[in-house]
Amino acid sequence: MKKNVIVIHGPNINLTGEREASIYGKEDFDSINREILEYAARLGMNCESYQSNVEGELINKIQEVRHTCDGIVLNAGAYTHYSYALRDAIASVRIPCVEVHFSNVHSREEFRSKSVIAPVCAGTIAGFGKYSYILALDGLARIM
Amino acid sequence: MKKNVIVIHGPNINLTGEREASIYGKEDFDSINREILEYAARLGMNCESYQSNVEGELINKIQEVRHTCDGIVLNAGAYTHYSYALRDAIASVRIPCVEVHFSNVHSREEFRSKSVIAPVCAGTIAGFGKYSYILALDGLARIM
Amino acid sequence: MKKNVIVIHGPNINLTGEREASIYGKEDFDSINREILEYAARLGMNCESYQSNVEGELINKIQEVRHTCDGIVLNAGAYTHYSYALRDAIASVRIPCVEVHFSNVHSREEFRSKSVIAPVCAGTIAGFGKYSYILALDGLARIM
Amino acid sequence: MKKNVIVIHGPNINLTGEREASIYGKEDFDSINREILEYAARLGMNCESYQSNVEGELINKIQEVRHTCDGIVLNAGAYTHYSYALRDAIASVRIPCVEVHFSNVHSREEFRSKSVIAPVCAGTIAGFGKYSYILALDGLARIM
Amino acid sequence: MKKNVIVIHGPNINLTGEREASIYGKEDFDSINREILEYAARLGMNCESYQSNVEGELINKIQEVRHTCDGIVLNAGAYTHYSYALRDAIASVRIPCVEVHFSNVHSREEFRSKSVIAPVCAGTIAGFGKYSYILALDGLARIM
Amino acid sequence: MKKNVIVIHGPNINLTGEREASIYGKEDFDSINREILEYAARLGMNCESYQSNVEGELINKIQEVRHTCDGIVLNAGAYTHYSYALRDAIASVRIPCVEVHFSNVHSREEFRSKSVIAPVCAGTIAGFGKYSYILALDGLARIM
Amino acid sequence: MKKNVIVIHGPNINLTGEREASIYGKEDFDSINREILEYAARLGMNCESYQSNVEGELINKIQEVRHTCDGIVLNAGAYTHYSYALRDAIASVRIPCVEVHFSNVHSREEFRSKSVIAPVCAGTIAGFGKYSYILALDGLARIM
Amino acid sequence: MKKNVIVIHGPNINLTGEREASIYGKEDFDSINREILEYAARLGMNCESYQSNVEGELINKIQEVRHTCDGIVLNAGAYTHYSYALRDAIASVRIPCVEVHFSNVHSREEFRSKSVIAPVCAGTIAGFGKYSYILALDGLARIM
Amino acid sequence: MKKNVIVIHGPNINLTGEREASIYGKEDFDSINREILEYAARLGMNCESYQSNVEGELINKIQEVRHTCDGIVLNAGAYTHYSYALRDAIASVRIPCVEVHFSNVHSREEFRSKSVIAPVCAGTIAGFGKYSYILALDGLARIM
Amino acid sequence: MKKNVIVIHGPNINLTGEREASIYGKEDFDSINREILEYAARLGMNCESYQSNVEGELINKIQEVRHTCDGIVLNAGAYTHYSYALRDAIASVRIPCVEVHFSNVHSREEFRSKSVIAPVCAGTIAGFGKYSYILALDGLARIM
Amino acid sequence: MKKNVIVIHGPNINLTGEREASIYGKEDFDSINREILEYAARLGMNCESYQSNVEGELINKIQEVRHTCDGIVLNAGAYTHYSYALRDAIASVRIPCVEVHFSNVHSREEFRSKSVIAPVCAGTIAGFGKYSYILALDGLARIM
Amino acid sequence: MKKNVIVIHGPNINLTGEREASIYGKEDFDSINREILEYAARLGMNCESYQSNVEGELINKIQEVRHTCDGIVLNAGAYTHYSYALRDAIASVRIPCVEVHFSNVHSREEFRSKSVIAPVCAGTIAGFGKYSYILALDGLARIM
Repeated sequence: MKKNVIVIHGPNINLTGEREASIYGKEDFDSINREILEYAARLGMNCESYQSNVEGELINKIQEVRHTCDGIVLNAGAYTHYSYALRDAIASVRIPCVEVHFSNVHSREEFRSKSVIAPVCAGTIAGFGKYSYILALDGLARIM
Repeated sequence: MKKNVIVIHGPNINLTGEREASIYGKEDFDSINREILEYAARLGMNCESYQSNVEGELINKIQEVRHTCDGIVLNAGAYTHYSYALRDAIASVRIPCVEVHFSNVHSREEFRSKSVIAPVCAGTIAGFGKYSYILALDGLARIM
Repeated sequence: MKKNVIVIHGPNINLTGEREASIYGKEDFDSINREILEYAARLGMNCESYQSNVEGELINKIQEVRHTCDGIVLNAGAYTHYSYALRDAIASVRIPCVEVHFSNVHSREEFRSKSVIAPVCAGTIAGFGKYSYILALDGLARIM
Repeated sequence: MKKNVIVIHGPNINLTGEREASIYGKEDFDSINREILEYAARLGMNCESYQSNVEGELINKIQEVRHTCDGIVLNAGAYTHYSYALRDAIASVRIPCVEVHFSNVHSREEFRSKSVIAPVCAGTIAGFGKYSYILALDGLARIM
Repeated sequence: MKKNVIVIHGPNINLTGEREASIYGKEDFDSINREILEYAARLGMNCESYQSNVEGELINKIQEVRHTCDGIVLNAGAYTHYSYALRDAIASVRIPCVEVHFSNVHSREEFRSKSVIAPVCAGTIAGFGKYSYILALDGLARIM
Repeated sequence: MKKNVIVIHGPNINLTGEREASIYGKEDFDSINREILEYAARLGMNCESYQSNVEGELINKIQEVRHTCDGIVLNAGAYTHYSYALRDAIASVRIPCVEVHFSNVHSREEFRSKSVIAPVCAGTIAGFGKYSYILALDGLARIM
Repeated sequence: MKKNVIVIHGPNINLTGEREASIYGKEDFDSINREILEYAARLGMNCESYQSNVEGELINKIQEVRHTCDGIVLNAGAYTHYSYALRDAIASVRIPCVEVHFSNVHSREEFRSKSVIAPVCAGTIAGFGKYSYILALDGLARIM
Repeated sequence: MKKNVIVIHGPNINLTGEREASIYGKEDFDSINREILEYAARLGMNCESYQSNVEGELINKIQEVRHTCDGIVLNAGAYTHYSYALRDAIASVRIPCVEVHFSNVHSREEFRSKSVIAPVCAGTIAGFGKYSYILALDGLARIM
Repeated sequence: MKKNVIVIHGPNINLTGEREASIYGKEDFDSINREILEYAARLGMNCESYQSNVEGELINKIQEVRHTCDGIVLNAGAYTHYSYALRDAIASVRIPCVEVHFSNVHSREEFRSKSVIAPVCAGTIAGFGKYSYILALDGLARIM
Repeated sequence: MKKNVIVIHGPNINLTGEREASIYGKEDFDSINREILEYAARLGMNCESYQSNVEGELINKIQEVRHTCDGIVLNAGAYTHYSYALRDAIASVRIPCVEVHFSNVHSREEFRSKSVIAPVCAGTIAGFGKYSYILALDGLARIM
Repeated sequence: MKKNVIVIHGPNINLTGEREASIYGKEDFDSINREILEYAARLGMNCESYQSNVEGELINKIQEVRHTCDGIVLNAGAYTHYSYALRDAIASVRIPCVEVHFSNVHSREEFRSKSVIAPVCAGTIAGFGKYSYILALDGLARIM
Repeated sequence: MKKNVIVIHGPNINLTGEREASIYGKEDFDSINREILEYAARLGMNCESYQSNVEGELINKIQEVRHTCDGIVLNAGAYTHYSYALRDAIASVRIPCVEVHFSNVHSREEFRSKSVIAPVCAGTIAGFGKYSYILALDGLARIM
C-alpha cells in the first residue's frame, strides 16, 4: 500500500531563492517544492507539502496529519533552535519525523548548532541544499 | 458575586490521553476539561476553557479576558520554558494567574525545569495530573 | 481506612509570622499549623506536624515515618536548594511526598529557583501562603 | 520620491498605557501610534503601522512588505529575546530595519539584555519611551 | 533657558575616519565633531565636546560637569564593555546620559554585545554612524 | 545601657590552633575565645560565645538570641559557602550580623570566594586572624 | 568519468552488530560494509572502505586519498566529539566530506550532541542505521 | 601494634537493603556492617562503625577520633557532593581518610559526579557495593 | 617607631556624600577623610590620603610609597572588580594592603561580589560606612 | 576455573618511577608491573599486562581481549579525561572494567577531576599508588 | 632604509627586578631596557622604549607613533587580560604589533591565560624572560 | 659542547604549503623543514625533525629523546587544544619544550585559543609563519 508523507517547511523557507542565495541557492521555493513532490511520487508515495511562518500552525499541521500520514519531513527553519512546543508535537504523534536543513547549520552562527527537535526525530539530514529533502524521503522510505 | 475564571491550555495539551500516556494519563482532553469546568461550577465560579497551539493566540486570549476575568489557570505547555512574550502578557494584565502542569516537570528533561512564566505567576502547581487544575482552582479561590 | 500523613517544616519556618511578613504573612507558625491539622482532620486523615532546623533531623523524621505514614507534605525551606541528602531520604522511602512553599520561589532570589528535591517529589505547590499546605493535603488525598 | 516605511509592534505593545505605567508611560497605544504616523508624514514618508501578538504574523508582515517598503521600524517586544525566526525574516528581506524599545532594556531583568535580532538590524534605539520610534524614523531617514 | 550638554568621546574615537573605515566611515573626527556641535546649536543647546583615551579622565570630566550640564551624550568606545568605574561615575551624577555607538555593536565581536554602562544610562542609540550622536541630542532634548 | 552580643563559631573553628597552623595560627580556640570575650567586656558589652559543627544548631542559636541580643559576630566556617538555611536565619532575625573569617578566604580555594550569607550581613571582615573578631566587635559597636 | 569515493569508519565501528544492538542494529560490520560498496558500485562509483581505531591513522588515510578521491563518507565514531586534528585534516584536503552516524546522536548522551568536525563537512546524515551511509553516497553523488 | 580505624557512614546509608535495591543491593545495613568489622578484625585492626544522618555529627565524630584513630573509611552519602564543612573536618585532622561509595557514582545523576571531599581524601573507591568498604580497609592498611 | 600608612581612594569615592546617599551616607568626602587621618594620628601613625579616578595613577601611587610606607588601606571603588593591573601593583610591593568598602558589596549588583584584588590583600573590611576605614587602620596596626 | 584478566596502562604510565616522583613514587614501571602480575597469580588469575601511548592501540587491545578476558583493570592516564573513543570501547565489550589511578586525581589540576570513562566502568580506585592496581584486582575478583 | 620600532611596557613592568623575582628575574628594568635597545641597534633598527602604568597613556603612545613607527613590541602587563581599549588602539593603527610576556602566562593564575589583545597582534612570544623582547624584535624584523 | 634539539611537528603540519595557504603560507613542508635544520646548524645545534599525525607517536618520540636531547620545539597542531596526554609527556621528561604555531591562533576559531600544553612548556611563540620555529630555536638556545 502507498505510504502517505508530508513535507513541512517552517519560517522563511518560502523565501528560498530570494534569500541569501550563497547559503540557500537561487532556485525558488515553488520549483524546489515541485521537485520534491515529483521525487516522492517516483518513490510511490502520496506526498503533500505545507509551509507556515507560525509556530503554532506547524504544530496544528503535525497534529492534523497524525492519523493519516506515515512519515514527516520537517525543515523547521529557525524554530529548530528553540521551539520546544514543536518538539512536543513531534513526540506526541507516533510517526517518524526526519529533520532537514538546506545548509550545513554547523558552519554558520553558533545558535544554529543547537537543535531542540533533533532528540525526538528519527534522523537528521543537513547540507545538501534541496537534495536534503530528497535524501530525507529516501531515508523515510527505509525506516517507515 | 460569582467570580469569573478561565482555564487556558497551551500547545499539545489537546492531545492528552493520546500522547505519552505514562506521563499524561489515558483520560482524553475533553473529558478532563469537562471535569475541570464542573469542579469550577461546584466552587461557584463561572469558568470557561480555551486551548491553542499558537503562542500569540494564548496572548490574545489573556489580553481579551483582562477586564472580565478574576483569575487565570494556565498550563502553558512547552511555552512555559521560553515564551517571554507570554510572561509579559501575564504581567501586563492585573489578574492573578496560577501555573499548572500535569506532570512533575522537574523529574523530566533538563529544559523542563525552567519556567520563564513562574516569576510573574501567583503560584505554581505541578505533578497531580488533571488534579493540578482542580487544585489550582481551589488555590485561585483562596487568593482572588 | 484512615490515611496517615505528616507535615514536615524545615529551617526557619517556625519563625513565620515574625519573619519578612511581606513574603510569609503575619499569621504565626502555631496558628498556621493548627489550621493545617484541622483541615487534614476534615479530610479524614491522621496528621501530625514536625519542624526542625537541622537537616539530618528532617532526614531522621522521614526515615522514621516510612512504615507508618502514607504521604508527606514537605516545606524544606532553604534546604530545598541544596540538600541532596534530603532528596535521597525522600527517594529512599516509598511514600509520596509533596513539596510546598509559602511564597512563589521563582519571583525571588535566583538561588531559590532551583529545587534539588523536586525531581523525587510527586508534586509541587508554591505561592499560596498557608494554603499551599492545604492544597498539598488535597493533592496527596488524590494521589495516595 | 516618497519613501515607504512600516512601524511594526510586537506582543503586548498594544497594551501600552495600561500596562506597567512606570516603565511604559500612561499614554495609550492608539495615541502613540497616531503621533508616530504624523511624525513620519512630516518627514515626508508614507508610513503604516501594524501590531500582532503572533510571532509568525510579524514574520508574514515583514515578508509581505519586502518589495514595497524602504525601511522597517520594529519593536519586537519580548520576541526580541528569543525569536531567531524573526531574525531570519529581517535578514531575508533586503531593507534596513531599526530595532526600538520604549524602556532601557538593560536596566531591567537579565533576559532583556539579550537581543537576538540586533545583529541583523541596521541600528538600535532604546529608552526614550514613544520618542524611540520618532528617533528611529529620523535614523531610517538618514540611512535609507 | 538654554540647556547645556556635553558630548564625550572615549578611547580611539579620535581616530575615526582613519580607523577601519568600513565600520566607522571615512569622515574624520574633527569634521564629525563640528557637525554634532552645529546640530546642537540648531537645537538651541550649549554644547561642548571632549575626548580622552584615559578612563579616569572620562570620569573626571563627568564629575566636573555634574553641576553645569543638563545632559551627557557618551560614546565610551571599548570602555563600554568593562568600565564599571565609568558606570559608577554616570550613576553618581544626577543628569541623564545617552549611550551612543557609530556601529551596530551587536553584529561585531561577541565582547561588544555587553555594555556595563547601559543599565545606568537613560537610553542607547547605535548603528547610525555619526547620526547616532545627532539622534542622541534629539533624544536628550526630549527627556531632559 | 549595655549591649548584648554573641560570637558564633561554625564548623571546625573549635580545632583552631591544631588545624592547618599556617592558615589559622597556633593559638588554641579557648585562648582566642577568652581574648574575644575580654575585649568585648572592655567595650562595655555583655558577650557570650557559642560553637557548633551542626548547621541547624547554629540556626537554633541565632533564632534563640533574636530577642535578647543586639548584634551577632558570625564565623560560619565552611557553611559560609553553601548554607542558604543559615542565610535565611540571619535574614529572619532583625539584629545586625557581622561575618568574620580568620584567613583571607579569597586567596585560598575557589569555592571559598563565594559567601551565601554575605548579602544578608551588615558587614564582612576577613584576613586578620583572631583580630578579625576584635575588629568585628568594634564594627558592631559602631553600627548597633 | 567514474568518481572515486572512500568510506572511512572510525573507532569501534568495526564492532557493529556485536555492540549495543539496540542502538547499532544486529547486522555485522562486514555485511554492512559489503552492502555499502555494492550500492556505490550501482551508483557507478569506485568505492573503497577503511576502518581504524587510531585517530592519526584516520588522518593519514584522509591525507593519502586527497589527490585520488572525489569525496569522503566519514563516520568518525567518538572522535566526532573532540578530534580537532581530524577536523583539520578534512579542512586541509579539498574534497567534500559527508559526516554520517548510525544512530540519532542527539537523543543519546549530552556529549554526543557536539560535533567538532561538522563545521568543515559538506553535510551530515544521522539516524538511519546502515542506510545513513547509503544516503551519504547519494548525497555525495549530488554535490561532487 | 594494632591500628585503630573507624568506618563512618553518612545520610541514608542506614537504609541500605531497603532503598533502591538495584543500586545498593538487598543486603541490609547491619549485616554489611558486621561483615566490614569482621574483615577489619581479620586484618588485625581495631575497627568501630558509626552512622549519622546529621552532617555536623559526622564532623563531631571525625574530630572526636582524631587522636585515637589511625585511619578513616568514609561513605559520606549525599554530603559528598556539597559538604565543604565535612571536607574541612577531614583536612583538619591528620589521619588518612578513604572515600567510598557503594555504586559507581559517575554513571548516575550529574550531581553525583562531583565530590567536594575527594581533594582532601587519600584515595577513593567506588562501585563495588559492600566490597568498596573491604577494599578501602585493605587500602588503608597499605598507606597508614 | 612611628608607622607610615597611606589611605588610597579609587574612582568616584570623592563624590561620597553627594552620590547615592542611601548607600554611601551623607557625610562628604573631605570630612570623612579628616576623621580617618585623625584616627590614624591617635593610633600613632603617620598617615596620608590620596584619591584618583585614574587606574594608572593609583598604581603609580602604590609604587611610589613602596619604600616609605608600612601599610596601605585601599578602597579601589569599581576598579576592585576588574583591575588586574592594580592587583599586580599590590602584589609587586611588599607591604600589607587592606581592602575596604563603604557598603556591603555582596548585597548589591552581582558584579560587585567579585574582587580581583582580594587574593593579594592581607584582609578585607566591608559594610561599615566610613568606619570601614577606621577598622582597617586598626587591623593594619595589628598585622604590620 | 581460572579467570583471565588484563591490566592496561595508558600514556606515560611507562615512565613511572622516573616521572614526577612526588606524585607517582620512585619505583619503576617494570617492577610495579611484576608485583601486579604476581599478586594476580596469587589470586589464581591468569593476568597479562599491556602499555601503549596510542589511544587507538588501547582500543585495539580492549577489542582484542573481549572474548578471552573476564575483566579489565585500566589506568587510562590522561586519556581518562577526554577519550570518548576509549569509553565507547569499554562500553562495546561485555566485560567489567575497573578504572585505576596512582594518585588522587581530585587533588591535582582541575581537568583531572573529570573522567569520561568512569560512567561505563564497573568501579573506580584512586590514590593508593601501585596498590590501586592490587585493590582493583581484588575488586574485580569480587564482581566478575 | 632603517626601520623604526617602539618597545612599549605596560603597568608594573617598571618594577621588574624588584618584583616577584622567581617569576620575573632579578635584573632591573633599566638594565633590561638597555639590553633591548642595544639589540635593536645591532639589528639596524631605530628603537625607542616607553613605559606607563596608565592604560590611556599606552593608547596615546600607540596612536602617536602610528605614522612614524614600522612595528611595535608590546608587553601590556595585566592590561593584556581586559583592556579592549588597548586592543582597539592596536587594531586602529596599521603597523604590526608583537605581544610579549616575561613569564609563561599559561602556567600562572587562570585569568592570565586570556589575552584580549592577542587576536589583533601579529604574533605572541612568552616565557623567555627578557629574551622574549629580543625574540620579538627578531620576529618583527622578519615580518615588517 | 653541542646541544641536541628536536623539532616535532604534529598532525597535518606535513600538508603545509598545500593547505589553507592564506594561513600557513605557500612554501612546502620539506623546504621549511630544511630551512629550520640549517638554521639550527648555524646555531651550532644538532637538530633532527619528526612529524606524525598520531598523538601517541608524538608521545613516543618525546619519551624516546628524553635522555639524548637538550630541548624540544613542538608544533602540536590541533592536539594543542585537547591532548592532555601530550601535556603529560612533556611534563614527564625534564627538558625544556617551546610551543610554536605558524599562525596567530588567537585570531582564528575560538577553540584554537586554548592550549592544554602551554602550562608545561617553557615558552610559546606564535604568528611568525616558518619563522616561529627559527625564533623558538633562538629562544631554546637562550634558556637551555
